[in-house]
Amino acid sequence: MSTYFSDIPAIAYEGPQSTNPLAFKWYDKDRLVLGKRMEDHLRFAVCYWHSFCWNGFDPFGYDGTFERPWQRVADPMAAARMKADAAFDFFSRLGAPYYCFHDRDVAPEGSTPRESVNHLHEMVEVLQAKQAQTGMKLLWGTANLFSHRRFMSGASTNPDPEIFALAALQVKEAMDATLKLGGENYVLWGGREGYETLLNTRVGQELDQMGRFLNMVVDYKHKIGFKGTILIEPKPREPSKHQYDFDTATVYGFLQRHGLEKEIKVNIEANHATLSGHSFEHEIATAIDLGIFGSIDMNRGDMQCGWDTDQFPNNIPETALAMYLILQGGGFTTGGLNFDAKVRRQSIDAEDMFHGHIGGMDVSARALLIAEQMINDGELARHVEARYAGWNTPFGQDLMAGRLGLDQVAERVLERNQDTRPVSGRQELLENLLNRYI
Amino acid sequence: MSTYFSDIPAIAYEGPQSTNPLAFKWYDKDRLVLGKRMEDHLRFAVCYWHSFCWNGFDPFGYDGTFERPWQRVADPMAAARMKADAAFDFFSRLGAPYYCFHDRDVAPEGSTPRESVNHLHEMVEVLQAKQAQTGMKLLWGTANLFSHRRFMSGASTNPDPEIFALAALQVKEAMDATLKLGGENYVLWGGREGYETLLNTRVGQELDQMGRFLNMVVDYKHKIGFKGTILIEPKPREPSKHQYDFDTATVYGFLQRHGLEKEIKVNIEANHATLSGHSFEHEIATAIDLGIFGSIDMNRGDMQCGWDTDQFPNNIPETALAMYLILQGGGFTTGGLNFDAKVRRQSIDAEDMFHGHIGGMDVSARALLIAEQMINDGELARHVEARYAGWNTPFGQDLMAGRLGLDQVAERVLERNQDTRPVSGRQELLENLLNRYI
Amino acid sequence: MSTYFSDIPAIAYEGPQSTNPLAFKWYDKDRLVLGKRMEDHLRFAVCYWHSFCWNGFDPFGYDGTFERPWQRVADPMAAARMKADAAFDFFSRLGAPYYCFHDRDVAPEGSTPRESVNHLHEMVEVLQAKQAQTGMKLLWGTANLFSHRRFMSGASTNPDPEIFALAALQVKEAMDATLKLGGENYVLWGGREGYETLLNTRVGQELDQMGRFLNMVVDYKHKIGFKGTILIEPKPREPSKHQYDFDTATVYGFLQRHGLEKEIKVNIEANHATLSGHSFEHEIATAIDLGIFGSIDMNRGDMQCGWDTDQFPNNIPETALAMYLILQGGGFTTGGLNFDAKVRRQSIDAEDMFHGHIGGMDVSARALLIAEQMINDGELARHVEARYAGWNTPFGQDLMAGRLGLDQVAERVLERNQDTRPVSGRQELLENLLNRYI
Amino acid sequence: MSTYFSDIPAIAYEGPQSTNPLAFKWYDKDRLVLGKRMEDHLRFAVCYWHSFCWNGFDPFGYDGTFERPWQRVADPMAAARMKADAAFDFFSRLGAPYYCFHDRDVAPEGSTPRESVNHLHEMVEVLQAKQAQTGMKLLWGTANLFSHRRFMSGASTNPDPEIFALAALQVKEAMDATLKLGGENYVLWGGREGYETLLNTRVGQELDQMGRFLNMVVDYKHKIGFKGTILIEPKPREPSKHQYDFDTATVYGFLQRHGLEKEIKVNIEANHATLSGHSFEHEIATAIDLGIFGSIDMNRGDMQCGWDTDQFPNNIPETALAMYLILQGGGFTTGGLNFDAKVRRQSIDAEDMFHGHIGGMDVSARALLIAEQMINDGELARHVEARYAGWNTPFGQDLMAGRLGLDQVAERVLERNQDTRPVSGRQELLENLLNRYI
Repeated sequence: MSTYFSDIPAIAYEGPQSTNPLAFKWYDKDRLVLGKRMEDHLRFAVCYWHSFCWNGFDPFGYDGTFERPWQRVADPMAAARMKADAAFDFFSRLGAPYYCFHDRDVAPEGSTPRESVNHLHEMVEVLQAKQAQTGMKLLWGTANLFSHRRFMSGASTNPDPEIFALAALQVKEAMDATLKLGGENYVLWGGREGYETLLNTRVGQELDQMGRFLNMVVDYKHKIGFKGTILIEPKPREPSKHQYDFDTATVYGFLQRHGLEKEIKVNIEANHATLSGHSFEHEIATAIDLGIFGSIDMNRGDMQCGWDTDQFPNNIPETALAMYLILQGGGFTTGGLNFDAKVRRQSIDAEDMFHGHIGGMDVSARALLIAEQMINDGELARHVEARYAGWNTPFGQDLMAGRLGLDQVAERVLERNQDTRPVSGRQELLENLLNRYI
Repeated sequence: MSTYFSDIPAIAYEGPQSTNPLAFKWYDKDRLVLGKRMEDHLRFAVCYWHSFCWNGFDPFGYDGTFERPWQRVADPMAAARMKADAAFDFFSRLGAPYYCFHDRDVAPEGSTPRESVNHLHEMVEVLQAKQAQTGMKLLWGTANLFSHRRFMSGASTNPDPEIFALAALQVKEAMDATLKLGGENYVLWGGREGYETLLNTRVGQELDQMGRFLNMVVDYKHKIGFKGTILIEPKPREPSKHQYDFDTATVYGFLQRHGLEKEIKVNIEANHATLSGHSFEHEIATAIDLGIFGSIDMNRGDMQCGWDTDQFPNNIPETALAMYLILQGGGFTTGGLNFDAKVRRQSIDAEDMFHGHIGGMDVSARALLIAEQMINDGELARHVEARYAGWNTPFGQDLMAGRLGLDQVAERVLERNQDTRPVSGRQELLENLLNRYI
Repeated sequence: MSTYFSDIPAIAYEGPQSTNPLAFKWYDKDRLVLGKRMEDHLRFAVCYWHSFCWNGFDPFGYDGTFERPWQRVADPMAAARMKADAAFDFFSRLGAPYYCFHDRDVAPEGSTPRESVNHLHEMVEVLQAKQAQTGMKLLWGTANLFSHRRFMSGASTNPDPEIFALAALQVKEAMDATLKLGGENYVLWGGREGYETLLNTRVGQELDQMGRFLNMVVDYKHKIGFKGTILIEPKPREPSKHQYDFDTATVYGFLQRHGLEKEIKVNIEANHATLSGHSFEHEIATAIDLGIFGSIDMNRGDMQCGWDTDQFPNNIPETALAMYLILQGGGFTTGGLNFDAKVRRQSIDAEDMFHGHIGGMDVSARALLIAEQMINDGELARHVEARYAGWNTPFGQDLMAGRLGLDQVAERVLERNQDTRPVSGRQELLENLLNRYI
Repeated sequence: MSTYFSDIPAIAYEGPQSTNPLAFKWYDKDRLVLGKRMEDHLRFAVCYWHSFCWNGFDPFGYDGTFERPWQRVADPMAAARMKADAAFDFFSRLGAPYYCFHDRDVAPEGSTPRESVNHLHEMVEVLQAKQAQTGMKLLWGTANLFSHRRFMSGASTNPDPEIFALAALQVKEAMDATLKLGGENYVLWGGREGYETLLNTRVGQELDQMGRFLNMVVDYKHKIGFKGTILIEPKPREPSKHQYDFDTATVYGFLQRHGLEKEIKVNIEANHATLSGHSFEHEIATAIDLGIFGSIDMNRGDMQCGWDTDQFPNNIPETALAMYLILQGGGFTTGGLNFDAKVRRQSIDAEDMFHGHIGGMDVSARALLIAEQMINDGELARHVEARYAGWNTPFGQDLMAGRLGLDQVAERVLERNQDTRPVSGRQELLENLLNRYI
């Protein structure tokens, strides 16, 4: 039976010399890297929304450019089933092991809350069957609390508690669905949890609402026995002028304030990182060091454009540095590498969806191999170790252990009465070193 | 005896109709606003560094443009005394009640740690005498841990604990000086507490060092009986590529992690706020709602320039909104309104220093009067109150009190089985309302 | 007969003391300002697209929030007529003299080019009748060459000449419609005239295509006897990664290259200016000095958001400076002040559309009154005159007249053999002066 | 005799497998690439200012970090000679064929114009001798018209014609020096040619002054028989709030207005490109297509920092794309690849200067080799050729030749009366293709 993707063969690994655009040049899933299979390191996921729901619309082109067949089916549930067929057909041909979805991606909003729930239940059955047929696994589920007009002023942070309640229903159901489908994480992204103007907003009140909501989510997770990780996805703005989950450090402070820093981790997106004024690597390093690193969305932005362009990663050195930090932090546990990425709206053919994902997977695989070299070689780590060696001296250790007060340290300096000369940071040497592995 | 400022009369309040550029049109220090004198509301401070230390240099013009007389005196301590004479002469003529300084602004670095301390002790005597003569008060003191080359890789976050120790000496001495001079706060700005490249940096290690340092500072504060507030000044970058005290929310998370959220507050600068991707008002609202609002640096940036321009505030509506939020948050306690602002490097005359400060004080005074109107009128507050009224219902209160689990809320929604329609946010109405007070 | 706006009275001028949100406080259309009626100075226009076509959708909320009645009518031409009824009802109640539209705003795309043309012809009849009934005038017409998927890779800059031709048809018809409706200008905004990636783009080829297209437009203008002004609207990016009409200076260079700098002017939008890294005032000053100032879109962005937020202006001092520059440049001729502005997507009620426009008109009127004061007072102009006085000396005039070569000037300097001391730029004084008028 | 660099051996090519940080891994100057030696393609230049004049100061660290020996010599001319010794010693060890300088980099400002000229003449003799000894060549000379306080309000755009004259003397002398030293280009960068505030600025007047100045420069070039290229270096801001030479397109418009578009080209800097909201590749492509591509400054910025960080290039794919465009545009003629780059201020050792330049040269060489592959393979070019094929049809050619009016084209469309379907832009495929060459 012919499908939208029937012209595309299953994507195979053909090696770096291949000139076949529909083959992997670097992603060789069974290749061992630092003792683990590539597939198990990278844990790739395809997202449902950008590839199967988005029709190529943008703020200046309302009607879309893609014309996917399932987007032209009038009956919402029939369209949802056809979309699921296409999605799993795509997943199978591509060969990534995981996928991710929002509730409303897979099942349409109904005319009442009950009907929406029924739609979701029905589609979860469909997805369950498809997972069984294809071997696909669910990296994470989530609820769309930002598209419907009822959430225009926030979901958990809405001024109206009835809308908070409608959000609670969606999240409860999405968590149930994630559990049923064996999902390994559950994600919350607060696209409308923020404000447009301080003139009508009580920031403190809204943050308290969000803290309450998150606590309910965590309690419910434990109640139903969901063993996956709850993840918050930071983003600074867009659609809101200001979003409360601005970046990793902000989320960390929020989690601590609400006693959740042991319960919730972050899903870091490259594009969200750069929108918040940080590098992707910064957000990864911060999350690891604060103990809340969970998962990543490996999709870049365009540094000249101040909005979420959600492009597939293609910069090898930047991706390599991100991968090096992740491996040094111990790699993924329940998390993985989701492509929250969309092909450009001018890339209107079925095959473009493959080019996007193949490119992203190959760049990530190549980054993994570079990171392996960096770790095996160890030179970068040795430089860093040497730079901080002073903190291993008795004085350094006394300081960090809190055995010396400010006045005692000051007294010691006055006794020595000499300056300390700084040492070169060797940034250029280290940048050159990184390029040696590429 | 003629001085650099001898052509400038003491600045007097002449009212809005005055066309005298060297007079206040709005800052009438004894005028009562909401039952308190303007001077006591605004607590203006002049900073030592921009007006008396900076010579007008910039990255492309090393030699400066100002040619202040005290900047051409060869002997460092003689120059320091002449600078102090000029500064207090300026303060007296201007009529702001407070000033702020870094240790190295008032006393030169010596050739040894001991000599630097001696210089500071000597100059603190000078400042103490001048405060007594003029009635000037110290809003806050601080230590310069960013200009000397030894701090190029950080002070408390330096890879070398000996440099941490040198920073400790400076802070201990600057705190002692602040106490002696009756300072009402002590500020830490971490211009080099961050990194240039992750390739040579252990973020977690450095954050732990900074946490340790801050704890030592707080312990020492209590030991010496300093009753003022310890303040951190957030800034996202510049000079560093990334600074750990990125913004208010980040500082809050850091303080919690190190058990300091009851001990340390923030000094928020308008220009730093905008560099971090926030509005000044956002940072104020966030700090108030997190309980760490301390003081402000009222100097704006240029939104088209990605660095700290430190300009005097001149936008009336924006300043009014900031002042409204501060008043609604209870106003300043130990904090105040410091002008960490510099005249443009083309504004080379003595009188330009007055134009800058007069303009900043008048805009702030006018903003205070607008905020007074907004509060007396109450219409803005009534709109906000009404918007969140749902949270006062039994259901809203049950939710916030944690009396309902996610599944119970979901069940309630399914029983009602109806959607909730959103309500207009009325942003344009409220923006028009704000302009009505101007 | 009840309409969507029937609860809203005609908006009247009530003066600054009015607390009626549905009244003008400053826009008093017959008030004389520098000898001309306010209405004739400001030439306000309401745009069709944001208020009547946009349904409140955004990239994260596909379905919109507004639910305007005419947006739920199934038959496209019936919806178009109902929309026109609503639009002219709104215009009449508001009291702005002009409106602006794109071809596709007023008449739906048909299933063939011919049908689209027929739709437009039919609706132009409707608009003509409504203009006659209400006295509304058309400030400018334009063609939408960016929403339909056929234009995804550009209109005049498309790699396919057949799409260039389809664009030509639309522009020809939109120009005819503008002429027929008495429009005073014709605008081109090139939202897709740019690129997403250089990898697939010939910049030089595309610029030549655009130059050819513009020449065809100018030739056609003369052929049909259209006496209005052709305007290009600069914008740096969004929707495209890069748009060729980046800013005013770029457009000027393009016009010269294609011999069009006497034929085409610019329509400057505040939000587009700030996206391009300039202030609105900069773009106005540049256009005036290059002789291509045409008209303005008075809608601001949010400097923290890197996309076009298209908000109504509300900052009084910034708007005043823009208005001062426009008046100094001679004011509008065929151009005017269009609000290419939209209410926030949370502002879902009919009355919010009025609040947005009333606020924008009042701020602009107030800005005009401030500019009047600035001009009548003349102090700012005197400062500037004095600053450049040296260019009126014989030496200054010889230089500008080209009577001296580089070596002659150098020789003169060596003969004088002395330095020249710079003079204060007095920026703070002038900023304070501006605030005195507010 | 021991020198600052005496521990550093001459840098040799050792190939990609070398782990010697003080060797080239890719820059093999005699290797043939597309029939030309690498050295002749790349035409590397070292700049005098960042490596030999800058002492590591920044806006928050006035005193610098580097402590180069020649920066501590009191007598200015003795320091200048010692600096020249160090510079040429560095050049020789590094092995780049060219250098660049500002007048004030090599010779100190004197106490009178005449003395400054004498200093320069004296140092030009020194440089001439050193060039003869070492074989170093001058890529370009330039005059520093931005550091001295007299230029704080501009050089050619100064409100005072006497300062314009002082600038004229400097440029005349710098051009003479460039000619004498066999320089292949002469550059003008207008760091102060712009404004801080429109309140005190006549933009049109200042642009006219700049146009006059440039015409004088061009006339003088012809008068003295200088055969090199005059280059303007665009930059949008910093130090000024707004600089007139904002970007390549702006400079092009300015050149046309003053009749100079055949006489002057641009020197494009990567960091300036990104500050202006463009990619480096965009600026290169634009300059080539407008016929004004001259030379490049290959130093990157940090996209998270809104100022000129002037870092050595290290991103291989981005550099490769730039090199591909340059080769496709015909490569350099008189221009070359200057490193207007500085080591980080924490990179305080002599060897760090080598790491920076070696890394930059290796990345550029590698980029050249990648570009060679791209050109030899031709697949990217074939994709682009095919995309625009329609313009080679008779209809396409008629359009571009101006043989069809707007109404004729419209008529043709109505006769065909059918839509044209767009074709995929294949961005992801092409991005993957680019990575295949890396």
